[in-house]
Amino acid sequence: MLRALRAGQGIVAGRVIIDCAGLQKTFMSTGATAPFKLLVTRRIPEVALKKLSETPGIVYDLFDKADVAIPPEEFRARARGVDGMLVMLTDKVNQEIIQAAGPNLKIVSTMSVGYNHIDVQALSRANILLGYTPDCLTETTADTTVALMLVTARKIEQALQAVRNGTWGTWDPLWMCGKDVHSSTVGIVGCGRIGQAVARRLKTLQAFGCDVLYSGPNKKEEADKLGCRYVSEEELLRSRARVYKDHDEIRRTRGYFGRDKFRQMKETAIFINATRGEAVVQDDLVEALKDGTIAGAGLDVTMPEPLPVDHPLLFLPNCVVFPHIGSASVPTREKMACMAVDNIIQYVLNR
Amino acid sequence: MLRALRAGQGIVAGRVIIDCAGLQKTFMSTGATAPFKLLVTRRIPEVALKKLSETPGIVYDLFDKADVAIPPEEFRARARGVDGMLVMLTDKVNQEIIQAAGPNLKIVSTMSVGYNHIDVQALSRANILLGYTPDCLTETTADTTVALMLVTARKIEQALQAVRNGTWGTWDPLWMCGKDVHSSTVGIVGCGRIGQAVARRLKTLQAFGCDVLYSGPNKKEEADKLGCRYVSEEELLRSRARVYKDHDEIRRTRGYFGRDKFRQMKETAIFINATRGEAVVQDDLVEALKDGTIAGAGLDVTMPEPLPVDHPLLFLPNCVVFPHIGSASVPTREKMACMAVDNIIQYVLNR
Repeated sequence: MLRALRAGQGIVAGRVIIDCAGLQKTFMSTGATAPFKLLVTRRIPEVALKKLSETPGIVYDLFDKADVAIPPEEFRARARGVDGMLVMLTDKVNQEIIQAAGPNLKIVSTMSVGYNHIDVQALSRANILLGYTPDCLTETTADTTVALMLVTARKIEQALQAVRNGTWGTWDPLWMCGKDVHSSTVGIVGCGRIGQAVARRLKTLQAFGCDVLYSGPNKKEEADKLGCRYVSEEELLRSRARVYKDHDEIRRTRGYFGRDKFRQMKETAIFINATRGEAVVQDDLVEALKDGTIAGAGLDVTMPEPLPVDHPLLFLPNCVVFPHIGSASVPTREKMACMAVDNIIQYVLNR
Repeated sequence: MLRALRAGQGIVAGRVIIDCAGLQKTFMSTGATAPFKLLVTRRIPEVALKKLSETPGIVYDLFDKADVAIPPEEFRARARGVDGMLVMLTDKVNQEIIQAAGPNLKIVSTMSVGYNHIDVQALSRANILLGYTPDCLTETTADTTVALMLVTARKIEQALQAVRNGTWGTWDPLWMCGKDVHSSTVGIVGCGRIGQAVARRLKTLQAFGCDVLYSGPNKKEEADKLGCRYVSEEELLRSRARVYKDHDEIRRTRGYFGRDKFRQMKETAIFINATRGEAVVQDDLVEALKDGTIAGAGLDVTMPEPLPVDHPLLFLPNCVVFPHIGSASVPTREKMACMAVDNIIQYVLNR
């Protein structure tokens, strides 16, 4: 069972460390003074590297590339004998890596809110802690999601292309006219942290003034306070809603959105996914967009990533694909890197 | 002097007719029964044409093209002898057209909130009413402005291009990272209807939670209620703000934003213009974007429109150009067309 530690429960600051198997017993200081050997699998933002450098007792080995993921064989080789590793979501931390690292490995810190790339069970068996970076990307990702809704509903990618390819002509009453986001109906399937931050932007009467429905296993206090309506997923899909999918509740649900779900939606619906590509059956989505089952789709996540440039989704005028830029603002990525570094530092300082 | 009539002041429903010279005396019913001859200069949305068709006493001549403006010589020819004309912002209504129409012309209704294309003084001299379509596009244009801010600040056009040209590679900590819109400082120069609708979206703590400053000749009650701060333009430009320009106060100010203004801004500023292209000295903007005087610009309006595809602004990675899609949602354009038609109908029914 995964659970998040709260501040005071362990040596590591609250909510960012997943205790893989209730390992509080390992948190007691051992008074260790030997240098802590850390592998950093990517060139992370300068501000975070500086923090690492300034922490006494940490020696780090940096795979010093920003735009290339560490190749698996190099990852295995450089993992040998480390006490900790700071990884990206591109780096598979599996049984093989854990064995390659050997018995010194005590903490893995990933610079991501997701941890699908990590074999949590294997970490658990080896009494290794896992740090991640929730919360700090919530607002930036909610901004991206609203941008995705606006770009998709208002045909902004086509509009940008028209500016560049010379098809922008005279003013025309209905040229590039899309759907309004303000005052529209929006449905959120699973309404976690990011979903609630999206709901705040959209529901607030002074802001976009949307009618926001949400579904999921639990009612959410913040959403209810805003006046969002908790409904069954069936009701949500059948409503007039543009559908937005939030991952909180369904992150482990591969192929959740397939043909049946799209057929339940109205033909005016726009499907927005800013969470996990795997949750969508992309072939079914292509079909639904082609035959008019739904009106459009905006995706910040796909399978695979990057999506091949000849993928059918990229030939549909009613589909917008962002290259997974949910949390892509400089301040947020710096915060994520610092949080990933802090997870290591807190561990080291409290060994 | 221009002023808007309020409901009850004349025969025409409130706020949409500009009384060019205090012409209330012409508003009294004359009991006319002859068919009202109307020229419609573009194929307007079906719902608005239907309204026209269903109004007894109106005979209209439609220039039945959506994507071509009526050529000036054809405009003059078809204007001859009409009682009214329903025009677009692409159609220059000047002394020549008024003379071509002749003495029957009593009302010009433009499907736009702007009326730079209309010689208001000439209408006034000839006792001709002018209808326009304010308010109904405020929310859609505010949505577009927020989209423009998000697309510009978050490098979304470059991101969309990367998806299509295959430069989307592996996840990279700082790839396509932009500035955050949430929690940022935003300055609004001139804070009219649309500016206030933008301020509502951005300032509201539950939405984007921005710090919003505004300048202009007058304090605005709605902006103050939201907690926006009324400051001098100098203070606004020197602040950390992303600058957004609203046209309410400066729509007649050609070349308002030139080198001096850009030099007053911080080098982190993003300049957003969703109002009138003429307000900007584009050569100065190109220079400011090239030499790093400011960080970026997002424009929904340019000079000219369409902007030539080889214009320097389109070669700057820190500049985003929308093809003037401020009010481009189907419902809003339908509302604008219906309002332009209603201005005619109200006149005809109350002759």
